[in-house]
Amino acid sequence: MASRTPAAPGPSDRGRLLITCPDRPGLVAAVSRFLAERGGNILRSDQHSNHPYGRDFFCRMEFTLPGLDRKWASLTEEFRDLAAPFAMDFRLHRADRTKKVAIFVSRQDHCLLELLWRWRSGELPCEIVHVISNHEDLRPLVEEWGVPFHHVPVDPLDRDRCETEERMLLGSDTDLIVLARYMQILSPSFVRDWPHRIINIHHGFLPAFAGGRAYEQAYERGVKFVGATAHYVTDVLDGGPIIEQDIVRVDHRHGPDDLRRKGKYVEREVLARAVAWHLEDRILVFQGKTVVFS
Amino acid sequence: MASRTPAAPGPSDRGRLLITCPDRPGLVAAVSRFLAERGGNILRSDQHSNHPYGRDFFCRMEFTLPGLDRKWASLTEEFRDLAAPFAMDFRLHRADRTKKVAIFVSRQDHCLLELLWRWRSGELPCEIVHVISNHEDLRPLVEEWGVPFHHVPVDPLDRDRCETEERMLLGSDTDLIVLARYMQILSPSFVRDWPHRIINIHHGFLPAFAGGRAYEQAYERGVKFVGATAHYVTDVLDGGPIIEQDIVRVDHRHGPDDLRRKGKYVEREVLARAVAWHLEDRILVFQGKTVVFS
Amino acid sequence: MASRTPAAPGPSDRGRLLITCPDRPGLVAAVSRFLAERGGNILRSDQHSNHPYGRDFFCRMEFTLPGLDRKWASLTEEFRDLAAPFAMDFRLHRADRTKKVAIFVSRQDHCLLELLWRWRSGELPCEIVHVISNHEDLRPLVEEWGVPFHHVPVDPLDRDRCETEERMLLGSDTDLIVLARYMQILSPSFVRDWPHRIINIHHGFLPAFAGGRAYEQAYERGVKFVGATAHYVTDVLDGGPIIEQDIVRVDHRHGPDDLRRKGKYVEREVLARAVAWHLEDRILVFQGKTVVFS
Amino acid sequence: MASRTPAAPGPSDRGRLLITCPDRPGLVAAVSRFLAERGGNILRSDQHSNHPYGRDFFCRMEFTLPGLDRKWASLTEEFRDLAAPFAMDFRLHRADRTKKVAIFVSRQDHCLLELLWRWRSGELPCEIVHVISNHEDLRPLVEEWGVPFHHVPVDPLDRDRCETEERMLLGSDTDLIVLARYMQILSPSFVRDWPHRIINIHHGFLPAFAGGRAYEQAYERGVKFVGATAHYVTDVLDGGPIIEQDIVRVDHRHGPDDLRRKGKYVEREVLARAVAWHLEDRILVFQGKTVVFS
Repeated sequence: MASRTPAAPGPSDRGRLLITCPDRPGLVAAVSRFLAERGGNILRSDQHSNHPYGRDFFCRMEFTLPGLDRKWASLTEEFRDLAAPFAMDFRLHRADRTKKVAIFVSRQDHCLLELLWRWRSGELPCEIVHVISNHEDLRPLVEEWGVPFHHVPVDPLDRDRCETEERMLLGSDTDLIVLARYMQILSPSFVRDWPHRIINIHHGFLPAFAGGRAYEQAYERGVKFVGATAHYVTDVLDGGPIIEQDIVRVDHRHGPDDLRRKGKYVEREVLARAVAWHLEDRILVFQGKTVVFS
Repeated sequence: MASRTPAAPGPSDRGRLLITCPDRPGLVAAVSRFLAERGGNILRSDQHSNHPYGRDFFCRMEFTLPGLDRKWASLTEEFRDLAAPFAMDFRLHRADRTKKVAIFVSRQDHCLLELLWRWRSGELPCEIVHVISNHEDLRPLVEEWGVPFHHVPVDPLDRDRCETEERMLLGSDTDLIVLARYMQILSPSFVRDWPHRIINIHHGFLPAFAGGRAYEQAYERGVKFVGATAHYVTDVLDGGPIIEQDIVRVDHRHGPDDLRRKGKYVEREVLARAVAWHLEDRILVFQGKTVVFS
Repeated sequence: MASRTPAAPGPSDRGRLLITCPDRPGLVAAVSRFLAERGGNILRSDQHSNHPYGRDFFCRMEFTLPGLDRKWASLTEEFRDLAAPFAMDFRLHRADRTKKVAIFVSRQDHCLLELLWRWRSGELPCEIVHVISNHEDLRPLVEEWGVPFHHVPVDPLDRDRCETEERMLLGSDTDLIVLARYMQILSPSFVRDWPHRIINIHHGFLPAFAGGRAYEQAYERGVKFVGATAHYVTDVLDGGPIIEQDIVRVDHRHGPDDLRRKGKYVEREVLARAVAWHLEDRILVFQGKTVVFS
Repeated sequence: MASRTPAAPGPSDRGRLLITCPDRPGLVAAVSRFLAERGGNILRSDQHSNHPYGRDFFCRMEFTLPGLDRKWASLTEEFRDLAAPFAMDFRLHRADRTKKVAIFVSRQDHCLLELLWRWRSGELPCEIVHVISNHEDLRPLVEEWGVPFHHVPVDPLDRDRCETEERMLLGSDTDLIVLARYMQILSPSFVRDWPHRIINIHHGFLPAFAGGRAYEQAYERGVKFVGATAHYVTDVLDGGPIIEQDIVRVDHRHGPDDLRRKGKYVEREVLARAVAWHLEDRILVFQGKTVVFS
């Protein structure tokens, strides 16, 4: 566990394309011809329209294109020309460009450990650049994995100072922030600077039990399942676009501590799936909800 | 399908005992000695205390006792003597006493049909004495099963008249009322007269999405599962003790109608399980929550 | 339940295209251009290659094309020209062409009832032309739904005579045969005449517990789940391509009858899903396995 | 992670009692009176008979009894007297007696890590005394947890020498051996010396796919779920009493490596549950199957 083993990046000629736009005939033809004319091969593609609930088109393509890394700038430029008349909102990603990830934690280790372990085993294709915590507790654990750990105490009366320090650590090239049971609320301006790039794991089956007392509330209400929800963070507490959820059965013999213990295995699983999908560019956000090409 | 096939009742010497009381040593010994001294044999027994979350004891026993039907009155009397010093809240049930059930429906047939199917195949040990509806739609379906169907229209301005008619149909010996997607709200006085004897199926994973627009709300929020909840009806809308819940995965391609279609298979399953447990005397209500000895 | 309510067919300008062929660049471009040039609009499309486990391409497209019904013959012809150089194995389906389905049953009704109910509620877009049984038991039930019922007794010593009668009933235009707990084995020549067009529901989680005693074997082995498997029938008993499976948890208290009762709700669900996917042209068979575009 | 944190043992006055015997009236009365007379309090109790599939009685009780540790020897002796006339097969356990566990691994770390994590967080009440492996790979990982690691190479031609070494390490007081993806087969005599005290995790949904190529076989058969099975090891390969199983959905796009990756999360979960139940004395073995009081 002593040395850092970044996940192998994707091959340099592989790309991913995500599109949202008004639905109309010829969209797939235009896009696939664009790739075919440049020697591209579509490995996998998912498309659908939300008809009859709307008139929008969603698409994700994984493709290979010889020399993709060299042609990247021009390809992007050319695609922009194709996209404009269709009013396409699009993202082009290179599979070999490893995303930089920062993980925020407090004292609980289960979600953090799961991410570190999947990262080391090659299942999370990213670079984990920092772990930031408002407590010192998890420092030894993190440093054993060769990942820098930063203690940034949170002073509720001076939230600004704390976020200033966090911003300095994150710099301008952190692609994704993962709140792995980070028990603090980020300021609206901080959230705004990483739009749909902060993933939180909530310990409840949203929209039920938002807020910090999810397991206690589940116990009090007497539900028969507890769950967890991974979502993009927005200004609304636990109200951002849901990426993934899952649940586990409980019964009348389980108290709040039992729910917490059973729930944490769901939390780590749900968070790890959501992070993997983000890293693999499988998620679109549209009108406050996610489209997940899983 | 033409003739009525009531489920076979349990054998006449089989009983069930449910107990709630303050926890203290010797409870199980006292109860099991009581049965043993009378020649009883415990077929199955579940007991637990809610320690460390409380100091209460819960128990369900299924037993056989030769001549139970003849000895019923004296047995009950004698058990009352045993129960008093322990401050036991108890229920004694004869397995051969088939409960009388009334089903309330509106226009949707899936929950009703599921109950009728399971009843006919012997999985719901009860007598279905009435189906009551605020619409005529399901009359032919119900009457083919040989079950009396009653159309009791609901006038929102004269709820009283409607419930008076319902009460006359139910009489005094209806043990259980099942709201199988009955889209009306019962009055507090009506609910009070069947305490923990009215089961409703809600088309959402409570406490999320209470009220009538559960699938629309689930769609708008973008959840990744839809669910259903069977609960005892109380004065609080969709707030009664939860008996059973379950869910099914949905994704971004599903609109409200898809959620409704997928959800209805969960609704019927959850409702049928809850009704079976009630009929088999497997449910205790304690402090607004259920203990289900499943 | 007295009158026959065929499911509404799809609109007349909607089609479905399924393709299997060697993977190579330009496939999607060629197909989508073909549709775009004829005014078609792709509603939903799924494509993938099985790289790195093979070099094959799989695709399903749902599209609308104005005047599809009138242009059908020429469109099919033209697509054949496109397909040839790519060595495409393809199927083109009109969504408005309702498939004709025959259901084979023995004495158990749960799978049959599920299919009839989903058919009537519009979820199985097909015409149920016959129910054929080797017993008389289910005749009243079937006829109440307005579906013709045929009793074709099975004489193990003269299987031929029985299948001759079945073939006459089926004629040449039955698209799909569903074995809804039909406890008989079809002859190889019969199976050969409906390739990938006979769906069976097996009451075990294949490949475990093939054959007729699945629940007894599950009980004897002490498994913690029982399951069901829908598959296309081939010459190998319970060895055909698996379409869908599911399971339900059981425990040590459950005997064979309990497994059977719990299992039947899984059977009906799994079978209904498999039949729906077949009717919606969502299934490809490739090398003894299915590709399900669900 | 540097220092060893054994799970807190249970309180010294808590015990567990497991019984198998022929069913007859008065069993529960006799046992509960025995405890009550000694001042014991039953915290939780589960009993059932396997009627109508047999005539056997199964029971697990958790109880507190003041001074249990001091009275242990006499209590056991006295219970033996009670048990004899009922032909009870019984086990009495002290909750404060922490079991000694040895883990056998090869090269894969996921099951091992899961056990170590849960052990450290207090969810596995045991002492992990050794990790034994036929490879050196996992030594650094194990030693970081403060657990002794032993490399015992396996020579297929001299299995005896290897097991002799393993026996020396295990000594006579190892309570449980966990095969956490140990890719070697133990000899019949070794297995015989730890009857129902060796737990293996198999990477398939037994009885399907026994043996070492479970994921490849699952891929070849085209199943729609992969699973894992924890079982007690016996002389029959992957044929011992099943303790726990679980599954995860896969589809046609998943190759053997994907099944392996998805399956390993099920493996670790299933194994951890089985080990916890064993440590908490929740498992009886009866006629080749388990009774799990979960």
